[in-house]
Amino acid sequence: TARFDFNDNSHRRYNPMIDSWVIVSPHRAKRPWLGQQETPSKPDVPEYDSKCYLCPGNERATGPRNPDYTSTYIFPNDYPAVKLNQPDYHSEKDKNSLEDRFFKVQSVKGNCFVICFSPKHNVTLPQMAHNDIVKIVDAWTELYLKLEKEAKEEHKPYKYLQIFENKGTAMGCSNLHPHGQAWCLNVVPYEVEREFKSFHGYESKYHSHMLKDYVVLELEKRDRIVIENDSFIVVVPYWAVWPFETMIVSKTQLASLKDFNEQQREDLASCMKQLTTKYDNLFETIFPYSMGLHQAPLNATAEEKENAWFHMHFYPPLLRSATVRKFLVGFELLGEPQRDLTAEQACERLRELDGNVHYLQHL
Amino acid sequence: TARFDFNDNSHRRYNPMIDSWVIVSPHRAKRPWLGQQETPSKPDVPEYDSKCYLCPGNERATGPRNPDYTSTYIFPNDYPAVKLNQPDYHSEKDKNSLEDRFFKVQSVKGNCFVICFSPKHNVTLPQMAHNDIVKIVDAWTELYLKLEKEAKEEHKPYKYLQIFENKGTAMGCSNLHPHGQAWCLNVVPYEVEREFKSFHGYESKYHSHMLKDYVVLELEKRDRIVIENDSFIVVVPYWAVWPFETMIVSKTQLASLKDFNEQQREDLASCMKQLTTKYDNLFETIFPYSMGLHQAPLNATAEEKENAWFHMHFYPPLLRSATVRKFLVGFELLGEPQRDLTAEQACERLRELDGNVHYLQHL
Ligand SMILES: O=P(O)(O)O[C@H]1O[C@H](CO)[C@@H](O)[C@H](O)[C@H]1O
Ligand SMILES: O=P(O)(O)O[C@H]1O[C@H](CO)[C@@H](O)[C@H](O)[C@H]1O
Repeated sequence: TARFDFNDNSHRRYNPMIDSWVIVSPHRAKRPWLGQQETPSKPDVPEYDSKCYLCPGNERATGPRNPDYTSTYIFPNDYPAVKLNQPDYHSEKDKNSLEDRFFKVQSVKGNCFVICFSPKHNVTLPQMAHNDIVKIVDAWTELYLKLEKEAKEEHKPYKYLQIFENKGTAMGCSNLHPHGQAWCLNVVPYEVEREFKSFHGYESKYHSHMLKDYVVLELEKRDRIVIENDSFIVVVPYWAVWPFETMIVSKTQLASLKDFNEQQREDLASCMKQLTTKYDNLFETIFPYSMGLHQAPLNATAEEKENAWFHMHFYPPLLRSATVRKFLVGFELLGEPQRDLTAEQACERLRELDGNVHYLQHL
Repeated sequence: TARFDFNDNSHRRYNPMIDSWVIVSPHRAKRPWLGQQETPSKPDVPEYDSKCYLCPGNERATGPRNPDYTSTYIFPNDYPAVKLNQPDYHSEKDKNSLEDRFFKVQSVKGNCFVICFSPKHNVTLPQMAHNDIVKIVDAWTELYLKLEKEAKEEHKPYKYLQIFENKGTAMGCSNLHPHGQAWCLNVVPYEVEREFKSFHGYESKYHSHMLKDYVVLELEKRDRIVIENDSFIVVVPYWAVWPFETMIVSKTQLASLKDFNEQQREDLASCMKQLTTKYDNLFETIFPYSMGLHQAPLNATAEEKENAWFHMHFYPPLLRSATVRKFLVGFELLGEPQRDLTAEQACERLRELDGNVHYLQHL
């Protein structure tokens, strides 16, 4: 009888980080594509755009003017999803009424920030100098510390800081000026809570951190490691959903940015630069993605710190070229995520790409 | 002190069907949009397209020719995500090795089908006659019964039939000829399993079906009911994520299509026609969405039948116009889904729209 071939036979893989599954259909990559075409990146963008609300010196949508910043620049989002000041919510539902069962609701307070990565309108992470990426890591760290302090001293309702970047129109980014966001809430968001729950379950069962053991295993196998340095690995997780999904995971336990030393900040910046350079080189386009940091809650308890392990997720949608993406729709929304190439195939392609020289430098 | 205002203050709502949360930020709707514009629907499409691989009489990508079908037409997907014949997978991992913990994998077998809704290339659900939509419901039912029989008599590896439709380029649909899909797997897909798990938990706790009680509550409140007839309600769930997300839910327990009588098939078709007419009328465009049916597994046990309750989910991405959609990215992927208008606001708009006359009939 024939042997099961992971490069050709459909299978589903389990994601222990959030207790979910993904279907892998490696034979499906041959499917023709007649659907929506993404807009590939335009190279002719000016360094300064007078109409951009993120460029230095320009006026923003709601009035204030940006300073003439020269490095990173953080300001409060003009259209925040959550606000600091709003009334508290007290449920008046009868215990165990149907309302109480089905209309479960909490007030959400917090603050939203925009983080400009660079004053230059026309660069993106991989096109920035290593030192300038270190400054982004520094800015994130300072924000984390500042919000911890405000929570402690001014009793601001800050529990979890979600730092992320939406890049490219395919990922809903409405301004190509290099920037990320940070939403700080009075609750731990659902996806983060799911991970903490799994980490906790793993710890109870195996007396070790899930990501500690996972890093050990991936370093031993080497099938899914894209980049490695002293402090981090960049891995295509065994259970990746997005075509070229990756995680940057710290090799030793770092609960949050706060615990990083100088070397670790440098090493994180260098992973980010190399990974995004590889991404751009893959289809010779400014590769869209959503990425974000998962770490300990603000002012974490000893227990919360032990349960946290710094990592970043990159979710890029492109599948086959600068214009053909994977849509996670239909079956994926109703049934289960499905992918066309295996994690190992994705890793192999990313690993072989140049992580030092960006394709636009050749032009 | 001010009272909490659900139409203005940020809150998070709990989804008991899949044990998750969504953040609602009603004040955020004012945000300007400079990002990706969707392509609105083009009205000048011919009834027959010689290059369409779904039109009657045409040749498909892999060779076979479609018959001159005059109503619905089902055929096996030329690029299926799962196949019937492939080797079995037997794990050779040591119990409790790291491999065993992290590389959890199952073989997935099955079959994928395409269901043409109509021979006409240029119609969509709301533009079809009521009787022709009933024929789609009939075709789904026949497929369900046929696959049950093949599983029983020919031992085909069929456990769950996921019927769905991706509509519009924004939802990854690669051909605008009206069609849906049905993927039949040897496993219950993750999202369906999650619902069954919640239903089971609810039953154990309250000795009633979750959707039975939810329908009772929504019919009492009426804040989120878009359409109602003898057999079904169309509701914007309290915990809706997509801007104009809805569910069609049966009023009495119907485990699967198999249990429908003639009246119920008619009533389902009429909900589908009215709902999609309202959707198209909302922004005067062919409204994109992913939709799908959730019901009992094939050849369900008595227990599985008791735990199932027929419903359909509609996930439409458009937010503010024919060209401006909601992107569930960044914070949504890393943290928690976030929406800008409340379920009640969405319901009010859908409820007020004409569900009988399609906007194109006025042109
Ligand atoms: O099968 P299609 O229509 O070519 O493809 C579409 O639907 C599938 C099922 O939801 C998805 O896996 C694909 O990503 C999507 O583009
Ligand atoms: O805040 P932006 O960049 O305008 O908006 C983008 O990112 C947000 C956070 O992920 C999402 O909620 C929006 O749907 C998306 O378009």
